[in-house]
This record gives sequence, structure tokens and C-alpha cells, in this order.
Amino acid sequence: MEIEKTNRMNALFEFYATLLTEKQMNYVELYYADDYSLAEIAEEYNISRQAVYDNIKRTEKVLETYETKLHMYSDYIVREQIFAEILAKYADDTYLVDKITILQSLENE
Amino acid sequence: MEIEKTNRMNALFEFYATLLTEKQMNYVELYYADDYSLAEIAEEYNISRQAVYDNIKRTEKVLETYETKLHMYSDYIVREQIFAEILAKYADDTYLVDKITILQSLENE
Repeated sequence: MEIEKTNRMNALFEFYATLLTEKQMNYVELYYADDYSLAEIAEEYNISRQAVYDNIKRTEKVLETYETKLHMYSDYIVREQIFAEILAKYADDTYLVDKITILQSLENE
Repeated sequence: MEIEKTNRMNALFEFYATLLTEKQMNYVELYYADDYSLAEIAEEYNISRQAVYDNIKRTEKVLETYETKLHMYSDYIVREQIFAEILAKYADDTYLVDKITILQSLENE
């Protein structure tokens, strides 16, 4: 499995998992986050490997569609970059470091 | 119509409109953003006032469910508050004002 694809799916999953069905959530999490093979998931849920594959492919599209519509992940990337730049430049300014830390913690809820 | 409810629905609509169907989008926008009455929307779309009402009530629930799951609006409120505090304290720091301005523009895409 490509590492880039895996990272992206894990990131999109972080943002949009709540919008998925329980089945979509389980398969995608096992496959991308827990590194199960399709065959292992198929065995776990007692369905065909093809059915698992089709479901995961559909869920990938669903996640990408949410990102196209809401761009929570791409906005997060831009914000994190700017937060890092501010923290680097104002490392000695406790007021500002505190504020940026609050902003960062908001991203990880 | 309560002004608070109207403001909240307009705000949630800003964030989640892309997840609504075209019909949901149209009715909610006419009702909350353009201040049409239920009767006016009913006439415009040639359906009953009750059907418009039911559809709008359902869409309100859909929007609140998205907010519960994704909290884009409540996160936005917290960030805007912190951005305002930073801008007030560092009004003379052009570097920081520029960075915060970029962060704010991201919210309005």
C-alpha cells in the first residue's frame, strides 16, 4: 500500500469519520490505521474479500468528496504551517505561545 | 422569527450548505437568508406551505447534526475570538497582522 495514500486516508478519516456509517468506519480504520489486509478484514466480518475492497474504495471516494466540499484537512494544513511559523518567530513570547497552543489544541479535538 | 435562530441557521448554512441537497439549500436560503415567508416559498415552488415547513425543519436538524459531528462553526467562533485578541495586542506588528489576516481569510473561503 502506498504510504502517501495511507497517510491521506488516515488524515481524512480523522476529520470525517463521524460522517461515515459504522461499517465504513470499521473497514477503513482496520485497513488504513491498523494495517489489516483485505483478506483479514473479510475473515473478521465473514464477507468476501471483494466486498471489503468495494466498500473501502467507495469510502475513499466519500472521504474525498467531503474534503472537496468542506476542505477541513487542507485548511488544517495551512493553519498548522502558519502556527509553526509564528511559534518559531515568537518562541519567547508566552502570551502568544499560549494563544497559538490553544488554537492548535482546537485542531486535535 | 427569532433573530438568534436566524443567525445560527445562516451561520450553519455557510459551513454546511455543500452537504445539503439542492432543494434543502434553496428553501433554507430563501427562508433564513432572504427572509421569504413559508407561503412565498410554497408559491414559488408550487408546493404546500406545510411541505416547505417540514422540509425546512428537517434541514435545520441536518445542519445541527453536522455541527454536532464536525463543530466547524463553534471552532470558528473560538478561533475568531483569539485572532481578534492577537490583532488587538499586536496591532503594530505587521508580520503578525499579515499572518492572522491569512488565517482569517481561510475562514471565509
